[in-house]
Amino acid sequence: MKPVTLKQIAEQLNISVTTVSKALKDYSDVSPKTKALVKELAKTLNYKPNTFAVNLRTKESKTIGLIIPVIVHHFFSNVIRGIISQAEKKGYLVIILQSNESYELEKKQIDLLMSQRVDGILISLANGTANFSHLNEVIAQDKPLVMFDKIAKIVKCSKIIIDDRKAAYMATQHLIDTGCKRIAHFRGALLPQNSIDRFLGYKKALLDNNMPYDPSLVYICECGDMSFEEGKKNAQQLLNDHNDVDGIFINTDLVAIGAMTEFNKQGVKVPEDISIVGFSNWFMSSVISPTLTTVDQPGYEMGRAAFKQLYREMKQLKKNKPVVYKEIVLETALVKRESTKELVK
Amino acid sequence: MKPVTLKQIAEQLNISVTTVSKALKDYSDVSPKTKALVKELAKTLNYKPNTFAVNLRTKESKTIGLIIPVIVHHFFSNVIRGIISQAEKKGYLVIILQSNESYELEKKQIDLLMSQRVDGILISLANGTANFSHLNEVIAQDKPLVMFDKIAKIVKCSKIIIDDRKAAYMATQHLIDTGCKRIAHFRGALLPQNSIDRFLGYKKALLDNNMPYDPSLVYICECGDMSFEEGKKNAQQLLNDHNDVDGIFINTDLVAIGAMTEFNKQGVKVPEDISIVGFSNWFMSSVISPTLTTVDQPGYEMGRAAFKQLYREMKQLKKNKPVVYKEIVLETALVKRESTKELVK
Repeated sequence: MKPVTLKQIAEQLNISVTTVSKALKDYSDVSPKTKALVKELAKTLNYKPNTFAVNLRTKESKTIGLIIPVIVHHFFSNVIRGIISQAEKKGYLVIILQSNESYELEKKQIDLLMSQRVDGILISLANGTANFSHLNEVIAQDKPLVMFDKIAKIVKCSKIIIDDRKAAYMATQHLIDTGCKRIAHFRGALLPQNSIDRFLGYKKALLDNNMPYDPSLVYICECGDMSFEEGKKNAQQLLNDHNDVDGIFINTDLVAIGAMTEFNKQGVKVPEDISIVGFSNWFMSSVISPTLTTVDQPGYEMGRAAFKQLYREMKQLKKNKPVVYKEIVLETALVKRESTKELVK
Repeated sequence: MKPVTLKQIAEQLNISVTTVSKALKDYSDVSPKTKALVKELAKTLNYKPNTFAVNLRTKESKTIGLIIPVIVHHFFSNVIRGIISQAEKKGYLVIILQSNESYELEKKQIDLLMSQRVDGILISLANGTANFSHLNEVIAQDKPLVMFDKIAKIVKCSKIIIDDRKAAYMATQHLIDTGCKRIAHFRGALLPQNSIDRFLGYKKALLDNNMPYDPSLVYICECGDMSFEEGKKNAQQLLNDHNDVDGIFINTDLVAIGAMTEFNKQGVKVPEDISIVGFSNWFMSSVISPTLTTVDQPGYEMGRAAFKQLYREMKQLKKNKPVVYKEIVLETALVKRESTKELVK
């Protein structure tokens, strides 16, 4: 059974295709009687408008593109959920692409979405992205683009973020307040703004508390697919390098969970020997033992806010009105659990 | 900067739009010199073909639709990853929708995808879906449809599944082999085929081992967003109802982890007092304490296989050749960990 066309409806009623089309859209120059006939037949035949044809005319595809680094990631799947829930309300479909933290792939995917004429693009950058011309090109073509979580400060567009520096400061301060004297940091990859900011927040907390900053206490991890393994490896390396570390602020929960697994295997007690604070508040962190103290990062809200901003920009553009870029900073909170000690009185 | 059109290229070169279009497509009735000129200018102006227009002609949208019950779910996010990786290889984009286990929403989403003229649809059914006319309509319109994981046996289309009954039998048999004498089952919702099959596998293992089947030992959970809480609640209820249960086969890992959390809180030791086998092998299950014995369900492979089958069907359809429906059954394996005891010699 092939889809029913306007032409079939027109032939059956012995009227023109234009009249059928106008009747379905409630144009005033079609009589109420004809409208009723057309609508009735369209319903009987289960007619569905061909959105390609509609889109070609209105220049809207009612789809948006979403590029994220990794899908199997508690934070990002929550972001996706937030975006889809909001897009659905406004009648938009979401095409999802995964960059696998690769700049090359991300660039290709931007091209693909542009040639598909999506109405707007939401993106969280790959770790490997250091050149932003593919994004500037999107903006130059008047296509709304909103960045979230992993952003580039120098690209001029709207951004939905958290204050990573402040959140990392808060996490490190909690380690200090619970008595840690020598605090390491497992940081994220070198390029992403959020891993830079979390590192800077860690460093500032140390300095504000008159604790020396020691670069040998900072370990790097890519925080991609191998996060858990990286956590184990870094924990092992830290035990080889230092015997006096009593606290670690870790860039993301999955790395922290890997580190805790390694410490557990090596007989290092958390939090008695080493206290740990993670970042993101994955669900997993509340069920492992000991449960993980971490920074709650609002993924679902970030997804909602990102779509809402994109929607505002798509609407402005449709009206040929200027778009005002916004930087929206969402709140974070420290979730205190068992991987850190009680506050020192 | 508005996107460059064929017309602009034609005007600049003082040739017709048709010639430009033909040149870009390497038609033989355009001279090599003109082709070179057109291609050069198209590249300079960064011309991108309007895929809507192309799609309208070829009747292909190069997009497929994917409907899944929940995104924030380790198994489903792995399925998505598998689908996207495969779709990308073949140049297809994936529109992802989440049914939230609701039949009404799923129905609406099918309509939306059909009116968007996707080339094919992949679906894992919502728990609430008991009527399948929305799916039969898709098939009646010659649109390729492949079901995976949560399927309906009576719908005539390709299906990618595991042998849930066999896997559940294997899980229950492991509890018996490790000395459990009175085994409960936390089953999934009543409608989905896979929760029915897992229940039947559990029951058959008991009967084959001459152990009585006792319906009061079967607890139901919806296994949706509230899985973890349902696991806790069912564990609590089981402790109230029975004092002799020494093993539980649980429909999905997240419910199992909820149950283990409750048992831990109540001082019930796993596996000494009660052994537990989960289902799905979420990553989380390998890092909690005790680690969870579970059935490994190949999400990534299922996603790949589902797209591959859909692709075969889309290709057949394009050639106007008949489509042969396939039922592909992927292998599962029991992953033995700490939540069950050693084998009884």
